Amino acid sequence: MNFVDSIIKKRDGGKLTKEEIAFFVKGVTDGTLPDYQISALLMAIFLKGMDTEETAQLTMEMAHSGGMFDLSALAGCKVDKHSTGGVADTTTLILAPLVASVGVPVVKMSGRGLGFSGGTIDKLESIPGFRVDVTEEEALRFAKESGIVLMSQTDNLTPADKKLYALRDVTGTVDSIPLIAASIMSKKIAAGADAIVLDVKCGSGAFMKNAADAERLAGIMADMGRHVGRRVTAVISSMAQPLGMYIGNSLEVMEAIEVLKGNVGGDLLEVSLTLGANMLLLAERVQSEEEGKALLLENIRNGKGLAKFKELLIQQGGDVRVIADYSLLPLAEEKWEVKATKSGYLTRMDTAMIGRASQETGAGRMFKGQTLDFGAGIVMKKRTGDVIATGETLAVVYSKRREKCQSAADFLQKAITIEAAPLTEQTPLILKTIRQEG
Amino acid sequence: MNFVDSIIKKRDGGKLTKEEIAFFVKGVTDGTLPDYQISALLMAIFLKGMDTEETAQLTMEMAHSGGMFDLSALAGCKVDKHSTGGVADTTTLILAPLVASVGVPVVKMSGRGLGFSGGTIDKLESIPGFRVDVTEEEALRFAKESGIVLMSQTDNLTPADKKLYALRDVTGTVDSIPLIAASIMSKKIAAGADAIVLDVKCGSGAFMKNAADAERLAGIMADMGRHVGRRVTAVISSMAQPLGMYIGNSLEVMEAIEVLKGNVGGDLLEVSLTLGANMLLLAERVQSEEEGKALLLENIRNGKGLAKFKELLIQQGGDVRVIADYSLLPLAEEKWEVKATKSGYLTRMDTAMIGRASQETGAGRMFKGQTLDFGAGIVMKKRTGDVIATGETLAVVYSKRREKCQSAADFLQKAITIEAAPLTEQTPLILKTIRQEG
Repeated sequence: MNFVDSIIKKRDGGKLTKEEIAFFVKGVTDGTLPDYQISALLMAIFLKGMDTEETAQLTMEMAHSGGMFDLSALAGCKVDKHSTGGVADTTTLILAPLVASVGVPVVKMSGRGLGFSGGTIDKLESIPGFRVDVTEEEALRFAKESGIVLMSQTDNLTPADKKLYALRDVTGTVDSIPLIAASIMSKKIAAGADAIVLDVKCGSGAFMKNAADAERLAGIMADMGRHVGRRVTAVISSMAQPLGMYIGNSLEVMEAIEVLKGNVGGDLLEVSLTLGANMLLLAERVQSEEEGKALLLENIRNGKGLAKFKELLIQQGGDVRVIADYSLLPLAEEKWEVKATKSGYLTRMDTAMIGRASQETGAGRMFKGQTLDFGAGIVMKKRTGDVIATGETLAVVYSKRREKCQSAADFLQKAITIEAAPLTEQTPLILKTIRQEG
Repeated sequence: MNFVDSIIKKRDGGKLTKEEIAFFVKGVTDGTLPDYQISALLMAIFLKGMDTEETAQLTMEMAHSGGMFDLSALAGCKVDKHSTGGVADTTTLILAPLVASVGVPVVKMSGRGLGFSGGTIDKLESIPGFRVDVTEEEALRFAKESGIVLMSQTDNLTPADKKLYALRDVTGTVDSIPLIAASIMSKKIAAGADAIVLDVKCGSGAFMKNAADAERLAGIMADMGRHVGRRVTAVISSMAQPLGMYIGNSLEVMEAIEVLKGNVGGDLLEVSLTLGANMLLLAERVQSEEEGKALLLENIRNGKGLAKFKELLIQQGGDVRVIADYSLLPLAEEKWEVKATKSGYLTRMDTAMIGRASQETGAGRMFKGQTLDFGAGIVMKKRTGDVIATGETLAVVYSKRREKCQSAADFLQKAITIEAAPLTEQTPLILKTIRQEG
């Protein structure tokens, strides 16, 4: 096969065959295709697109490019969840124990974050003693015992995705919907998922900046699921403001525990329940989203969700005392209050800018391999629509260094808009839920 | 400067700044930009284009990426000629001595061909003893003495073009009009040209398959000339059939000599006169194309053109006896006559297919560095519009190996269409001449 012919075909808007896609992924994985040919094809795919069939074939080839985590020893449907990532998005730490607590196993591999705050793995590592490097044998054993495992992605999974992502990052081909879809789905399939709930965030601080793009990604993923024999539900949720009030690593762990204790409600709880209920629905544990939400909420009220979280900490070596005593979690020593410089209504938040502030504190990585400050971050004090008085605290910044607090505070001031007139319409929190038919 | 930002800008249809283009060409030349980023930008340029200003800036940066041949010691306007390449296109060997014979110096660097037959340099090397590797000092001396030099491109010229061309070739980004224009013009400018006559071939056996593309390339080159202070005239000529009757290396030398002797007329002479006359016009040696053609034709009749060709051979070590005795030129021993299998009118020739037949004989390269058989090739016996009787000879194939003769003959049979009804309209030989205004 002459790979240049495949590049030219895609360049001219053609459709790649199954054989061409297999040849491509094999060449990416074993290093026989030179990077300059891979990147030329990536740019052609970026600009000319791929249809659902091509994207599904790319997904399956990428999924099979390395090891496949075999979860067949576990009974029932294995449901995974993926979020495209946002600010103060701690849903995994909340819904994983809740879903497991109603009897649907959650074996979830996560990555380290490169963005506004750490990934799930980073957040878990902010809990003293918590061990994220779990082998596949251990994971299976844990899953059978407790029904919940939260672990690092194992090294041998989807090498093609790792290589392609690294190239996309330096060739301006990251924001391509078929490439994003194939990257997400291939990892989930390689990690053993039978069904996937996808949380597509939409807003300035998210991968997808507008509802049309978010819906397109969600639609393609759901459609593609059919092609690859995986059930997919995509929830499009708003990133018009931080989801929770706590941004950071240990800070987000605290907020997750507060939600599991039933002390905190709001958007973070609402999205966690929506995603969790859709996981239960895909696993056929419940008949409707409402039934699922009720069941999960019940397990917050009766403490079973928090008990499952405690079981997770014990199983993976985390200090369970943090649940009762947050002072055992790291918190950066320097603190800076961001005060309102005028009065009015909080009309808008630029979540990308808030994410930038979070990176500034040391809570999020600006480059790969950067060591995070687990105790750094931001506690938001207000939400959009709130009435604000001059001098009121809008947010509190935590960082190791005072000058970092200050620069993060500057970003936050820019991110928050206070106007004389109140907001006439609010973006709904859940914009749409896309389910596969049949 | 972050090069990924430039890739993203072009990907989204933006315009690169002069600084971005300079950074790009510098990075290509000194190897600091990785190939995968270069190829991603090339694909983005292919799909999103470049405007005339960007193309002109790219051209000048590429021209200055290596050595610049300084022809300022020669008086007057230095006119160069470039053809996008076709089948049986021997115009350089005819017009260079003719133009020099009327007092306009021709110092022309040419490349080796990668295509249907050899390049000008390969054709000249088929003349026993002819030396194409001329130093810049020698070239200047020759130019002052004889007014004509035909030489290989020197090694240090336009390294950025060499690198970019090699990458374009393996990433499906060859046929991009701005990239083609910048490649051609940068080489001509680095080779010292003040003015350029461009022969844009149009037809199946040419780079540009249709008149619209050919006109677009011609227009961009003329327009770009203004931006870079070079006068450019672009002639769009038909490649609906081979230009001359002889295809190959020594075979094309023979035909060129026959034209210079005044024994052969037709399309090859017509295009040579048109291009040569436009060179004289740009050099301000004549006032009109007609005057230029008359002057060149006069120097065929009075033998001055042939005398200049002889001077060229003597100067560069070629055996001048070949002019009188073609048997001193190589000719492949195996010979195969291609006969008409039916009668009718020769309505069409697929010049790409005829070029493929020429490669089959060994006259043209199929891969870089391939050694040519200088004596191989094809002598065409018919032109479109001719009445053909069954069994008549359509072409004679020359090759070292009989099976190669046979397979070339098969290509030729496929390339030539004979139909019952005559051709109602013929493509004009010269489709358009585009001159800069002002």
